[in-house]
Parts: sequence; structure tokens; C-alpha cells
Amino acid sequence: MPAFRAGSPAQTAFLGELIDAGLFIETGVPGLYGRNAVFEDVRLRFDDLIRRRALPDHPEPLRFPPLLPRRQLESSGYLKSFPHLAGTIFAFEGDEADAHAQEQRASRHEDWSEHQHMSELVLTPAACYPVYPAIGRRGPLPPGGVMIDAGGAYVFRHEPSGDPARLQMFHQRELVRIGEPEAVAAWRDGWRDRAVALLTALGLDAQLDVAADPFFGRSGRMLAASQKQQQLKFEVLVPIAGEDPTAVASFNYHQDHFAAAHGIELADGGVAHTACLGFGEERIVLALLRRHGLDPDAWPAEVRRELAA
Amino acid sequence: MPAFRAGSPAQTAFLGELIDAGLFIETGVPGLYGRNAVFEDVRLRFDDLIRRRALPDHPEPLRFPPLLPRRQLESSGYLKSFPHLAGTIFAFEGDEADAHAQEQRASRHEDWSEHQHMSELVLTPAACYPVYPAIGRRGPLPPGGVMIDAGGAYVFRHEPSGDPARLQMFHQRELVRIGEPEAVAAWRDGWRDRAVALLTALGLDAQLDVAADPFFGRSGRMLAASQKQQQLKFEVLVPIAGEDPTAVASFNYHQDHFAAAHGIELADGGVAHTACLGFGEERIVLALLRRHGLDPDAWPAEVRRELAA
Repeated sequence: MPAFRAGSPAQTAFLGELIDAGLFIETGVPGLYGRNAVFEDVRLRFDDLIRRRALPDHPEPLRFPPLLPRRQLESSGYLKSFPHLAGTIFAFEGDEADAHAQEQRASRHEDWSEHQHMSELVLTPAACYPVYPAIGRRGPLPPGGVMIDAGGAYVFRHEPSGDPARLQMFHQRELVRIGEPEAVAAWRDGWRDRAVALLTALGLDAQLDVAADPFFGRSGRMLAASQKQQQLKFEVLVPIAGEDPTAVASFNYHQDHFAAAHGIELADGGVAHTACLGFGEERIVLALLRRHGLDPDAWPAEVRRELAA
Repeated sequence: MPAFRAGSPAQTAFLGELIDAGLFIETGVPGLYGRNAVFEDVRLRFDDLIRRRALPDHPEPLRFPPLLPRRQLESSGYLKSFPHLAGTIFAFEGDEADAHAQEQRASRHEDWSEHQHMSELVLTPAACYPVYPAIGRRGPLPPGGVMIDAGGAYVFRHEPSGDPARLQMFHQRELVRIGEPEAVAAWRDGWRDRAVALLTALGLDAQLDVAADPFFGRSGRMLAASQKQQQLKFEVLVPIAGEDPTAVASFNYHQDHFAAAHGIELADGGVAHTACLGFGEERIVLALLRRHGLDPDAWPAEVRRELAA
């Protein structure tokens, strides 16, 4: 079992408010909640706001299910950096006697894991992951590269927590830019400023910061330091519940990491670079609920206007 | 490995057409595909058509992530009936040496399953599953019961196939009725007719049939016969690719199965019944593409009108 991280008193209190208001629906597992129509309406309005703000770039919309081929996770370096966050899909293989034994153990809530075997599938850890092989399979990029709108997609992080802003399954709203290094870096920098302005216009106290991924273990601390020193990751932080602000958007410049892994080449045969921009949709809804109150009908007119389609 | 079911020649050809047209995006695993904007636009229009048709019943919209607590699967009987279709989430537990050993094996595409341990989570097998415990936790039902619109939710079936209509991860558009036995049965019967009319209006050759779930093994054949004999499940079948039509919607009357499992009581303390109605969204899009052609802009005006918001 991964360590359950208890929420702070303020986070626990906010989670209780969300559940009492029906915005979150408990399932019995921390970090896994249903949502009511009020919560989903705000989430989809924010999702559409990003779509509209990205329209001038004419991104190509692609959508992917929340599962990836296991082979892609094996090849991507994810298990080196984030073994603690990954989720793999196991499934039954066996005959009727095995199925009976499995069911008997499971119905008594005993360990039935020996009946389950690793499948070809894993949970998607970040919404941009399926984009790279899909683009790589097309052959060399068109001149100028591509921009993909990967929509609001469910992603998994195995980190059970009492903080309502730390979900195990949540929607990442991702845009991906693939092309010449300078074009990719410029796109990343432009969106960094746009994202802060966009969240500020929603009445949120948005702060930009150089950041690092939650790499695993001791060697991970060195990776994180290097990532920060090279300014490869930025985050936008906003207050939700508790003393420290929470990251609600991140901008990641992968240099040639994903392009090399998936054979993505520039039109002239050079090495492509990639960057992605991800908004944590549930966290942004939570930040808005925390800032403006649990009833979106009573939010300030200017916030409601920003979120109107 | 579950047996891979090869597609028929017609199914294989149709899958090739979908991939060539960019409607499906290959991932390397059969039954797991990305989708382009054209496919998603039709899917969302159909999703919204169901929402609009359900509005007169004033359903309560609830949304759930594509994962369930493992404990619910253990208690629901699913592992007795469908062990072969379930997917469970495993995750890493260990220190840096374990993580290193796992990563080394994985990067060579060797077996790394021993480093993965069963988590508290499984993939959602049907979109109505999270609804029952959520309603059970509220206490006795209001008079007349409830109707839930569970939206278009991703569900998992572990059945890799070359048939483009048999996906491992797909959207089920579910409505759930919970209440007095007569009210639930009447709701199920009413929607059965509405669904056939709705699909016929989209130009599909929709046929209603008494059906059975794909229960596992020899004892499963008896369960299927009993289910058919009691007329607990109906399906709407439409032609997609191949000789036999494909089920694109199903109507399931569970009697008191889920209500008993999750303690759902009527307002007067009596036993509640439940029924659900599920549309397979990807199958319906595929049926429309097969029937009217791969370019929705060229579909008959009356079909486009039905799908207009």
C-alpha cells in the first residue's frame, strides 16, 4: 500500500464541505469521487474556455481513451522516473475452477491477486502520452510542426490522499506542440503568460513558478534539481485549501525526449522537440469553488462571463 | 493472454477504412484506438441526443471516473459472472532497488509483474455500477424513486478483438432507474420502444431482441438461459460490419440484485428494484459511419437534423 497522505485540517474540512454540498460523491476510496451536475458544468465550461483560447493556433483535436499500451510505458522512461505513480491493468486468465477459486477469495475480501495476470494495458499517466506515438506513425512532420488539442482526458496517479485536490483519477486538459526547437520553446513561453492571465481573469490568485516533477527516490532528487536548473517545467499555483498554493497548470518542455522515443522527425529530417501544457481541471474547479463559494450561480458576474460559452 | 478474436474479413476491411480515414488512430493494441474530431463530434451529438430525449423524465445527472473501489467488484457478483472481462489496477510497492529492478526488466520487455501489487481500484465494467452505492448511501429513496443520467462514461471489457465494434475501452451512455418494481419495469419497457424509434430515425435498421449477458463458463450458460427465459435483458441490434448485426443498446432489469447489494430501500422500507439502459456510443457512431458513409457532412439531411443540438 502506498502511504495514505492525510489531508491538513483545512483540506479535510473543504472535502467535507464538497461532500455535504453533493459536489463530490464518496466512493470509499480516497482520491476517487463522483461529481454532480454543478461540478461538471463548471469543469466543462473551463474545458471549453481552453478550447476557445487555443483556437487561434488551429490545433488538431485528437481524443484517446484513459489506457495506454503497456509497451509504451516500458519504453518511455516513466517507470524510471515515476514508478510509484503508475497503474497497470491485470486480468484473469484461467478455467472455471480458477474462476471459482478467485470469486470465493474475492467475496471474502481475501487476497485474489494470484489469479490476475499482467495485461497489455496500463492506465494513462498524462494526457499527452498517446499523442507522441500517434504523430510518430504519420512520418516526418509537416513544415512548422503540429499542435494537438488532446482535450480533457482522464489520467491516473496512484497517490491516495485526504486532500480533495489530490485525486487518483482526474481530467488533464492538454495541448501539445511538436516541431522545431525554437517554435516549441516560443509556444511554451507564450502559453505560460496566457495561462496566468486566463486564471487571473477567473478571479484566482495565480502565481508562476519554476517547478520539478515528483521524481522517485534519491536519484529522483538529482533529476528534479537538474529539471529546475534548466527551467524545463513551470507551474501555475493557486490557493485551494491549506497554507500552500496548489499547482493547477504545468508547462513542460521535453526537448527531444518523446520525439526520439517515438521517431518524430522534422520535415527536413532534423530532430523534433515537444512541449505540453496541462491544466488540472478538477483542481481549477476546486480553486474556483474555494475562492467564489460553492454556488456558481452566485459567483461574480465577470467570472461567470469568462466561463460562458 | 485472453484469446484474441480475429475480425471477419468485412470487419477487418472496415477497421482498415476507419484507420485510413483517420477516424480511428491505432495504438498497437487491438480494441484500443484514439479518435479524431469527426468521430468525436458524432459521438457527442449522439450523447446529447440521449440527454435531450431523457429530459422529460428530469433525471439527475451524476458523473463518475472510470475506476471503482475493488471492494465493490468483490461484493457485486461481477467476478462470478464475468471474471474474463474484468480489469484490476496493480501498482508498485517497494524501495529504490525494487524500482530499479522493475525498470530494468520493463525496459527489456521482460516480465515485471512481480513488482506490481493489487491496489484498491479496478476498472469500471459498466457505467451504472458506481450509481448504486452512491444512491444507497443517501438512505431510503424519495417516493417514486430516482432516475440518474450517468452520462457517457468509459468502461472496460478485456476482450481484444479485430472487430472495430468490439473495443476494450468504450463509452457507455447510461440511464438508471431505481424505485418500485412496477415503476422500474414500466420505465424499462418505455425506453425499449423509444430507443428503437430513436435509432430508426437515424437511418439505422434497428431490431429488438431478448438477450443474455456473456456469462463465463458452463454455469454461465445456465444463467444466460434463465436470464432469457425471464426476459430480463433486451438488446437493440443494428448492422455494422459482417453478417450478424451488433448490439448497440441494452436494457437490463436487475430486479433487487443491486438494491440488495447496496442497501437501497424504498421510502416505505420495501425492497427497491433497479434497471439500466445503456447505449454503446462508439458502436452507434460506427453503425452510422457504415450506413451513411465516412463523411458525416454528406449524411442525409434528416439524420443530420436528428443529431443537431
